[in-house]
Amino acid sequence: MKPGIILCTLLAINFSVCAGDNDSLAIRKIANEILGSNKAYANLEYLCKKIGPRLSGSANASKAIAWGVSALKAAGADTVYLQPCMVKHWERGGKETGFVRTREGLRQLKLSALGNSVGTGPGGILAPVIEVKSFAELDSLGEKNIKGKIVFYNYPMNPLLINTFEAYGDAVRYRSSGPSNAAKYGAVGVMVRSQASNTDQHPHTGVTFYNGAFPKIPAVSISTAEANWLSELLQHKDVLEAGFITHCKMENDTLSYNVIGEIKGSKFPGEIITVGGHLDSWDLAEGAQDDGAGCVQSIEVIRALIATGLRPDRTVRAVLFMNEENGAGGAQAYFDSAIAKKENHIFALESDAGGFTPRGFSITADAARFHRMEKWLPLFLPYGLYYFKEGESGVDIGFLEKAGAALAGLEPDSQRYFDLHHAENDVFEAVSKRELELGAINMAALVWLVSKYGLN
Amino acid sequence: MKPGIILCTLLAINFSVCAGDNDSLAIRKIANEILGSNKAYANLEYLCKKIGPRLSGSANASKAIAWGVSALKAAGADTVYLQPCMVKHWERGGKETGFVRTREGLRQLKLSALGNSVGTGPGGILAPVIEVKSFAELDSLGEKNIKGKIVFYNYPMNPLLINTFEAYGDAVRYRSSGPSNAAKYGAVGVMVRSQASNTDQHPHTGVTFYNGAFPKIPAVSISTAEANWLSELLQHKDVLEAGFITHCKMENDTLSYNVIGEIKGSKFPGEIITVGGHLDSWDLAEGAQDDGAGCVQSIEVIRALIATGLRPDRTVRAVLFMNEENGAGGAQAYFDSAIAKKENHIFALESDAGGFTPRGFSITADAARFHRMEKWLPLFLPYGLYYFKEGESGVDIGFLEKAGAALAGLEPDSQRYFDLHHAENDVFEAVSKRELELGAINMAALVWLVSKYGLN
Repeated sequence: MKPGIILCTLLAINFSVCAGDNDSLAIRKIANEILGSNKAYANLEYLCKKIGPRLSGSANASKAIAWGVSALKAAGADTVYLQPCMVKHWERGGKETGFVRTREGLRQLKLSALGNSVGTGPGGILAPVIEVKSFAELDSLGEKNIKGKIVFYNYPMNPLLINTFEAYGDAVRYRSSGPSNAAKYGAVGVMVRSQASNTDQHPHTGVTFYNGAFPKIPAVSISTAEANWLSELLQHKDVLEAGFITHCKMENDTLSYNVIGEIKGSKFPGEIITVGGHLDSWDLAEGAQDDGAGCVQSIEVIRALIATGLRPDRTVRAVLFMNEENGAGGAQAYFDSAIAKKENHIFALESDAGGFTPRGFSITADAARFHRMEKWLPLFLPYGLYYFKEGESGVDIGFLEKAGAALAGLEPDSQRYFDLHHAENDVFEAVSKRELELGAINMAALVWLVSKYGLN
Repeated sequence: MKPGIILCTLLAINFSVCAGDNDSLAIRKIANEILGSNKAYANLEYLCKKIGPRLSGSANASKAIAWGVSALKAAGADTVYLQPCMVKHWERGGKETGFVRTREGLRQLKLSALGNSVGTGPGGILAPVIEVKSFAELDSLGEKNIKGKIVFYNYPMNPLLINTFEAYGDAVRYRSSGPSNAAKYGAVGVMVRSQASNTDQHPHTGVTFYNGAFPKIPAVSISTAEANWLSELLQHKDVLEAGFITHCKMENDTLSYNVIGEIKGSKFPGEIITVGGHLDSWDLAEGAQDDGAGCVQSIEVIRALIATGLRPDRTVRAVLFMNEENGAGGAQAYFDSAIAKKENHIFALESDAGGFTPRGFSITADAARFHRMEKWLPLFLPYGLYYFKEGESGVDIGFLEKAGAALAGLEPDSQRYFDLHHAENDVFEAVSKRELELGAINMAALVWLVSKYGLN
């Protein structure tokens, strides 16, 4: 017996909308097209290896935009165009330097400025370090212990949580709010343990948000391995001081673009289905899993529909969003345009959790539309996707809820994502061709079903 | 809503045996122990990096046996012992040399002798090459086209099959039977396209079986990338000859050992549950996914039960089997001993499909025992395992069906396994700590449930 059969039997109780054979055959055609081609993987290789890091506002982001246009044209989209958006423009401005001074001398620290953070200036920061395990501990230490020091937040991702996104959601507040919370008590700088689920030598970056009520202080992340090492030293009171120099700064907001490729719906062209990922990436890495994968999967949805001759009844739009990482300017522009043009957005699907083997869809919709989609589940089981759950979809399509769209986020297996998220090891080689393709198959299948049946 | 909840609701219909809260709490304790410790991963690192390749009969296999004893003792097993077994002993005898002669000159081929194959002798083989896409094509070519040549089997794994084990099962006959089938028509040697689901430069080895009716001819595998390249050259009739030298030979069968660690059952010590993987590996690689993962997971089952104080009612035995790769001597010895001692084997679980993120269990049992286990499914859903299907379990425990045991094989996600199976890239770094641990959790949970409830 196959897993599909077990679950199908159980699901047969409320399995009515799914037309069965014809849809199953259409999805099999899509799957054969995607698995039998090397296109998604070749696209990802090009984006990662020929372009590479592509933070909003950078020269590489412009190259990625040009690449996106040609990739969507090659995929067979009817119309390919750029959608202007204003984006945050943060520059690292050169490699950071960091060290710890112990009784034995200096030891180098590998670190990364947090995204959108201020630099130290050329003179850097040199100050005593105080380790803090939680905001509660920070508050109890207060100004008398914190003032003039570098706060080292050493809060690990909780390994006991099975879904690593939950552990990330719990830990990431030390990166996003840690600098301002420390500045409140007079800290001069912040070092944050990377939000990573493994122990290695890579610092993970990511955006931080300053609270305007307090001074903007420089902030960096250090790797989990170095966080463990530093904590050990501090326990033995062997650290005299730490220092770092960062060169980063926020430039003015910059004009950039979302890249959009469309297949016009043959029966209901005014009903729009969006499928997307984000084109920008952090500057440390190739942005392969985050989110080159989501981009090439979205392009692959277009390509597979065209290549199989499965012309959609409703309009399908692949969107490569700009500026997800540090501003969501692209998401805002896409939403603003939808409202301004009074577009009818019925559904949006995002892939921004990596190109790992797919497991489910997380759905934001009312109960009626949720159940309509959930009834299609048996069609997905042969491709390794076995649940629809209610939950969040993704940053880039989130605004579209207000435009009336039902939203979905692809949920791949989460175990490896935070080994490389926002770090220099997020490279093409970390993506499995077949896992990437399985994600694209399930995305294309859901887009196809919505394009055929709608959601009402 | 969580995926577990959706499926639990659906499964509630026939969900009666599963005691629910207590079992769920016991499994959560097991999970916390495994996820909160680094032990499985540290064991795997030691086995891969300090010992490495460990083909049956080799000096490294002996080191691995000694390591297995100490690891099972450290895990807390009551009794740890060696079980003698006679194993095949094949030696590669030095790195192979291969080349293709074209009009432009010689081009080196990277190749690997097939396991258990004969060597070429020091003079090697030099002969024209004929590409064959299937056994049907081989038969139609016949002796007049094959005699005196090297047959190049270029049959890829079918990328359209979602479960890569199905594609492997389809393609592996060219490795296992290809040499003898070609020898039947007078071929002097065989080159086989690696059974790999990706395109890269690593030849994958694996066992071949000679048919006593025909001469034993030397046989090697080449990488998928070089198979594509060679096929291209042959289409342009640009290959004049190919040659290779292999130094391998079969030695006499050798005495070796399974390593066994046991927790005696507190209520029904005579009812035996086996959980195992295989300790031997091919000589090209560290044998991390195949099957260091299964070994350290099996040891982790013992360790987690002891560390959590979940003393099993029935006897739980972790077995590190020897010689799975090229003879199954360990599996035979374990079975023979079970029969000779009239042991009561109620259940055996094998992990030999890699330490990837778990998806299901494949079960060999009658309907009653299958359904008994299947009703436990809701307990596994929080840990990413969502199906029990009827199917094969594994080579090392397969014999135990004849001893009356119900069998299960852990089915991890299959997408990446054949990128590295039997090849030099099957190294420690290819294993995700969390994926490995999730597999161990699901294994320990199933062992725990059978140890508590039995299967009758």
